[in-house]
Parts: sequence; structure tokens; C-alpha cells
Amino acid sequence: MPTDTLAAWQPPLIAPVDRALEASLRARIDGKAKPLGSLGRIEELAIELGAISHPAEPRGDNAVLMVFAGDHGLNAEGVSQYPSAVTVAMVMTYLAGKACANAFATACRVDVQVIDSGVAAELPSHPDLIDAKVRMGTGNAAREPAMSAQDAALALTRGIELTVAEIKAGADIIALGEMGIGNTASSSLLLHRLAPAPLADCIGVGAGQDAPGMAKKRAAIEMAAARSDATAPFEVLCEFGGLEIAMMAGAILGAASQRRPVIVDGFIATAAALLAVRLAPAARGYCVFAHRSAERGHDIALQALQARPLLDLDLRLGEGTGAILAVPLLRAAARLSTDVADLSDVLEGKL
Amino acid sequence: MPTDTLAAWQPPLIAPVDRALEASLRARIDGKAKPLGSLGRIEELAIELGAISHPAEPRGDNAVLMVFAGDHGLNAEGVSQYPSAVTVAMVMTYLAGKACANAFATACRVDVQVIDSGVAAELPSHPDLIDAKVRMGTGNAAREPAMSAQDAALALTRGIELTVAEIKAGADIIALGEMGIGNTASSSLLLHRLAPAPLADCIGVGAGQDAPGMAKKRAAIEMAAARSDATAPFEVLCEFGGLEIAMMAGAILGAASQRRPVIVDGFIATAAALLAVRLAPAARGYCVFAHRSAERGHDIALQALQARPLLDLDLRLGEGTGAILAVPLLRAAARLSTDVADLSDVLEGKL
Repeated sequence: MPTDTLAAWQPPLIAPVDRALEASLRARIDGKAKPLGSLGRIEELAIELGAISHPAEPRGDNAVLMVFAGDHGLNAEGVSQYPSAVTVAMVMTYLAGKACANAFATACRVDVQVIDSGVAAELPSHPDLIDAKVRMGTGNAAREPAMSAQDAALALTRGIELTVAEIKAGADIIALGEMGIGNTASSSLLLHRLAPAPLADCIGVGAGQDAPGMAKKRAAIEMAAARSDATAPFEVLCEFGGLEIAMMAGAILGAASQRRPVIVDGFIATAAALLAVRLAPAARGYCVFAHRSAERGHDIALQALQARPLLDLDLRLGEGTGAILAVPLLRAAARLSTDVADLSDVLEGKL
Repeated sequence: MPTDTLAAWQPPLIAPVDRALEASLRARIDGKAKPLGSLGRIEELAIELGAISHPAEPRGDNAVLMVFAGDHGLNAEGVSQYPSAVTVAMVMTYLAGKACANAFATACRVDVQVIDSGVAAELPSHPDLIDAKVRMGTGNAAREPAMSAQDAALALTRGIELTVAEIKAGADIIALGEMGIGNTASSSLLLHRLAPAPLADCIGVGAGQDAPGMAKKRAAIEMAAARSDATAPFEVLCEFGGLEIAMMAGAILGAASQRRPVIVDGFIATAAALLAVRLAPAARGYCVFAHRSAERGHDIALQALQARPLLDLDLRLGEGTGAILAVPLLRAAARLSTDVADLSDVLEGKL
């Protein structure tokens, strides 16, 4: 794709969250039946959600986890201890309702949507599987661009469209999940270029790697980094992938365009958020960060986004498991705004 | 009550949680469809819950918040910026479904029970209010014992009975909440004697106090501490109260006697847990600690119980708000055990 076409991809229109609303939202929360400031971060979250949904009330009942699945050509270099076939096996596990994400989603009353963004296999058709496949996995970023500009634009656009459709169907909250063997390697490269941060600081053990595995992972990532000096967000995506990450970034842009909160959890989702925010800075205001991952590099990504996550539970699974666990916190924050009496009414017996 | 009658109050029979089960429970979690250890503290929680419910599977669907309300004679010394009448006003707010605890409980699908443990006023009868009033508030602990041994025994016993009844009615998880103007002062005294810890380290701002307020609070607490050198848990309760704290301690003992997890959140609930564990050490294994409160002294209480809370959200409201927010984490942990496929089945396509 020539540069002029490349420049032609445009994020959707996103209204920045209006910081000027904070004072009145804070006054409202301060007036609730509780000691001043006594709900700490839930109060901050209530203010954030109020500003996002303004002038509508914040709502959290209908939450949807969107799990984007894609494969990584870079996995041919041995960046993961698992073969790409595990991506397919895990997609089938989500569809069977038997993955950790499903269990957490049931526990927290969150709907689950599974999206084939670019799994490197034909998947059986299934009523609960959304086929948004852009291609059969990315190219091997150590040796070639992960995807063309057309593919990147398509993945981003599909992410936007799918999220907008979920919101139009009633979703109050979008939670992001992902599955893609090798995708911490891709995320390390995105983080390195988009934070930016030294490459070595961005590389971690992912799903688990021993010392020889880590050496292979590092070598492959360094080879990819050496192949391209891209720093512009769209170009960085094309060079280093992945398709599920692109679609997650699109999902963030889509949620932001509809003024809905989007929950970002671990290392890969945060890399996708960094991509989304570099493409459209106003998207940042719609992102809620769920948890501090045990994966190395996540702190760098959070710092780059000036994000302080809600939970710190040593999670490093992905699948959106951390995002799901944050949903009840958002719901509680929303109901603090809408359901709780004012202290003045309580003291005057006006309930 | 003479000493022999005092010694006659006995906690219920509590089977210690069997630590020997941990290895097999860990092996089961390790076999699930996820990288080893990748769910961090949720895995630890799943093992804890599995050991608590063994040989039954852990369950978390039916969670009940029990909010115990009581007044404190010590409040006459100005330990709180609020008058005791606020306790009544807040009880009415729970019953109207308009307190923060109600909003959080709706958000997290937790039932709410409101218990009059010792509010210093006649409360109107209400279908959702459990009348377990022991007396009209405690004595002023700065000048007299907070309650008699008979009252303490009655409060503990009612806490046990109410919880056992909830569990027999189907509760999988008991979450503890409290309301009682002045009860951080009472909790400071309990903590001081039962941790034990220096009194000054146990005193914090509670619902909020300015410097003159803090001086009054400190003076009243010091006066109470100087009045009695009790260190035995039952005697410490009699001296320093309160009725809602006693009933919460009873609730912990009741839940433990039925092998159900009980969620302990902030400073006051943790003081109640310390009392329960000093009365019956085996109760500790059934306590799950929800959050790290912003109230000074909470860390000391947590250390005394070797507890590491799940959440850190700067909460200091009470009412069980932190306990409610931990319920989804317990549910997720329970479903990790019961709902998630084994990795071997996933890789062999046996779903």
C-alpha cells in the first residue's frame, strides 16, 4: 500500500472525555451517604465513568468480554513454548465454555464473544464464533512485515465495527480479552516502539519460558526489531502485528467512539491500548485499566499510558481474565452514582 | 458474672482447615487449561476455598452480606464526629436499599441482611431487619465495661446462630459488614489488647476527624485502656465492646463451624476476626481478607492474623463494602476449580 493510502486510514471520531465535568461529578459523589472520600478508588472510578457517559448516567449491568484470537508467524522462531495449534484448541475451549475466561465470566455475569481475528487454521463454524479473520496468522515479523497496511486497516476497522455493534445491542462495558500463541513477543515490539522503551525491558516470560526458550524469544524479537525502524503507530502495527492486537485496538477506538468504558487488562491488551491511544489520543479517557500483570514490561506500558490499574492479583494469563474481575468494580462505581442516597437526605430522614 | 460462668462460654466446634489437602488441590489447579501459576492469587484462593469446602466442591453463587449495627457508649466522649443517631439513620438507609453497601451488593449480586445487634434506639419493625438487639448500645468503655459477660456471650451466640441459619438456608459465602458510630475506637482497643500492639499505633481517623477530634478520640481511648488491663479475648470484649463486633466475631465462628468461607474487610471487621480467632484459633482458616483499609491500624490487625488482603482500593467506609467487592473474586476462584477444563483434555481435543 503506498504511503498516501496508508495515511488514508483514519480512526473514528472520538469526543475527548471532558475533564471540566470532574468537579461537579466529585461534588455529587461527595454528597453521598458516606464519610468524605471513604470509597477511595471506587469514587475515582465513579467520576471517570460519569465523565465518560455524560450526560447519561453511568451503567454497568451489561458487560461483554470480547476475546480476539490470532496467530503469530513469529512463533516459527520459537518465541513461545506452545505451538500455534494451541490457539485453535483454546478457541474451541472458549466455545465449549470451559476456559478460565468462561469460568470468570460466569462468576461475574459477563457475556463472552469469541472472535477469530486471524487464527492460522480453518475453524469449524459455531454459532458463538464471530468470523472476522483477516488472514491465516501474521507473517513472521523476524523476517517480513507481520501484515500489509490493508490487513492492518481491515483488522482495526473490524474491531471498531464489532464493538460498535455490541454497544448498539446494549453493552454498557466492553472488556477485552485475547488468545494468540506468541503474542507477548509481538506486544514487546509494539511497546518498545510506541512507549517508547528499551527493547530488553519490554521482554518477559509470557506464558512461561525456560532460559533456552527466553534466549530464542529474545533473539527473534531482536531480529524483528532490527528489520524495521518504524515508530509511527500504524506502521509499527504492520511490521510487528498481531491481528488480534489490531482488532483489540480497534475495539478500544470503537468503544471510545460510542462513549463507553473499555476494560484493558494485561500486557497484550495494554499494548493494544497503547496502539489505540497513539492512533487516537482521545481514546485514553475511555480506557479503564484492570490489573497489574506479573508480565515484565506491563509496568512500562501502564506508565506510558499514565494508568494505575485497579487490581494486583499476580495474573498473567490473558484471555481477559483480569478485565472480567474488574467488571464488578465498575458496576459498583456506577451504582454509587445512581443508587446511593445523599447524606443530607439520610440525616434528615427523607428516604 | 463470676469467672467460672465466664469460662463457661465456649465457641462452637470448628474443624481446622486441613493443610494436607493443599498439595492435591494445587495439582488440580495446575492441571487446568492455563499456563502454570498464571492466575496468581486467584489460584491461591481456589486452593483455600477447596480446602474449606472439602470434600464438597467450593461454591460461591449464594453470597450474603450480614450488616451488624450497634452503638457505642464511648461515643459520649466524642470519639466520632457523628452522633449515635447516625447509626439509626444508616440502618434505615440499608432497609431502604440506598446505602453504599446496597449499591455494591446489587452490583455484585450479593444479598443483604441487616441485623440490629445493639442500636441505642427502638427501631421500627421492618420485614428485612433482624432484631437481635442485646441491649441499647454498649456502656461507655471510658468509664465502665462496655457490656456484661452475659451480654457478650449472648451477642457471640446470636452471631453464630444467625450465620448458621443463613448457611442452612443456602448461603455459600458470608460477607461481614458493620455500622456503628464510634466503632473504630472500640476496634482500636480490641486490637491493642489482642494483637497485641501499642495503643497509639492502633488509633486512626475512622470516618474522619480533625485534630481536636482526634485529641478527644485518643483521650477517650486512653481512658478506657487505663480502666482495665484485660488481655483475655472474652474479657477484652466485655471491657471494650462493641455489640456489633461481638456478633461479627460470632458470625465468623458460625461460618467456620459450617465450613464456609467468611469475608472480612476493613478495620472493624478485622478486629472482630482477631477476636474470633483468639477465641477459636481454627476459625482463621475460614477467613478470607478482602481489602487493605486506609484506616491506620488495619495493617497491624492483618499482620496479627497473617493475612494478605485481595484488594487495595483505599476504602475506609465499612458496611462490608470491601467484602462485597471481594465476592466476585471468590466466585471466580470457585469456578476455576469446578468449571475449567484440564489442559490435557484441551490439547487432546477431548472437550
